[in-house]
Amino acid sequence: MTTRTVMSPDELDAALRAIGAARYHNLHPFHQRMRDGKLTRGQVQAWALNRYYYQRQIPIKDAHVLTRLPTPELRRLWRSRLIDHDGDAEGTGGIARWLKLTDGLGLDRAYVESLTGLLPATRFAVDAYIPLVRDRSPLEAVASCLTEMFSPMIISERVSGMLQNYAFVTADTLAYFTPRLTQAPRDVDFALAYVKQHATTREQQDAVLDVLRCKCDILWAQLDALHFAYVEPGLIPPGAFVPETA
Amino acid sequence: MTTRTVMSPDELDAALRAIGAARYHNLHPFHQRMRDGKLTRGQVQAWALNRYYYQRQIPIKDAHVLTRLPTPELRRLWRSRLIDHDGDAEGTGGIARWLKLTDGLGLDRAYVESLTGLLPATRFAVDAYIPLVRDRSPLEAVASCLTEMFSPMIISERVSGMLQNYAFVTADTLAYFTPRLTQAPRDVDFALAYVKQHATTREQQDAVLDVLRCKCDILWAQLDALHFAYVEPGLIPPGAFVPETA
Repeated sequence: MTTRTVMSPDELDAALRAIGAARYHNLHPFHQRMRDGKLTRGQVQAWALNRYYYQRQIPIKDAHVLTRLPTPELRRLWRSRLIDHDGDAEGTGGIARWLKLTDGLGLDRAYVESLTGLLPATRFAVDAYIPLVRDRSPLEAVASCLTEMFSPMIISERVSGMLQNYAFVTADTLAYFTPRLTQAPRDVDFALAYVKQHATTREQQDAVLDVLRCKCDILWAQLDALHFAYVEPGLIPPGAFVPETA
Repeated sequence: MTTRTVMSPDELDAALRAIGAARYHNLHPFHQRMRDGKLTRGQVQAWALNRYYYQRQIPIKDAHVLTRLPTPELRRLWRSRLIDHDGDAEGTGGIARWLKLTDGLGLDRAYVESLTGLLPATRFAVDAYIPLVRDRSPLEAVASCLTEMFSPMIISERVSGMLQNYAFVTADTLAYFTPRLTQAPRDVDFALAYVKQHATTREQQDAVLDVLRCKCDILWAQLDALHFAYVEPGLIPPGAFVPETA
């Protein structure tokens, strides 16, 4: 039996980053194809349509986290996430900006919002996020967002790759991502500091590492589903979005 | 068997108000004593100390409601409640203002925040609010706040009665209540309109009326517990706050 000692905050930080280096969805072939301009318009549409469900559930997830946070101070910090995603007025916030992306890709907005074209596997993966923040400890609920440590990199790859490689993508269409480049680091600064401060036993540290792995799985599984349905073998499940043949 | 027909929005409105007229805690003898200046300082302290737990749980309750609201628009409207209670900065918001009230009444802030002096019955009643918003329908979650239809009246009675009758209470101490006189009507305008629009079957209308009754019970039970422990028979449970004898 090996002795499992408590990690220092720096060791925990490194262990978290090692999970990202091994499991974050920037490593997924679907992302790499997107970045490299190897997806068709229909495949990019399928990505945006499915990812809309993830975007839409983010504030619900964050409200669950809010129910777990004991102090006004912590809730105020977390509240900024609700504002980022739901906005301050009609047509603002991350969800509205994501719909500008699906608009820009030529998808019908009512169809996107109806969720009828969603891959079932997208729904299962996204829905698996809620129990992470609702049923585990508040510390794990906070830690589940730490994939944001790795998101500026994937976003910049995605944006520059898409602008460079796809005639059907404009900077305006990708407006969703610009604020995320500042929001995600701000959010992660707080969450990472919180986790490093509060995960003080090895059990807590293991739980934090586990929830980050689970969250990476949730992101990864969404790209698996897209890859399987729309790239190879290209088996679109009954009822799911079917791209127009170009 | 009587036929139970669907109520018109106005009939539903009247039925909601009838519940308030019969069951809202402005009718409770503890409130009436407070208003009429018949409580001792220790009894008012006990009220403020116990009610602090209710105040503290309100944003948790509202975050649960947020997890049930499907659109950014609804969540933005409900988010204002989080802001009201948690504030925008340290020392602002309803919880912080309630602590100014307990400060003003001469209670030690750390003792108040520790909840160690709470009546167990306060905890049970307040905790019963969470299932109303978490486990019932989103419509019922929204409707549970409709006691705010009746709150401006009890607040104005409470404030004027306390200022008039208690030398130990100042306008500054009661600063909690001033914003509530505008916040509660704004919140209730939305919630009442939402309930009248969405409770369209008799079953939904009955559920809405039931949840308002339950919410009235939660408020009423808090005053029962105070009355029993600190007025008559004056049996303070082991461990609960004991006022200094004046």
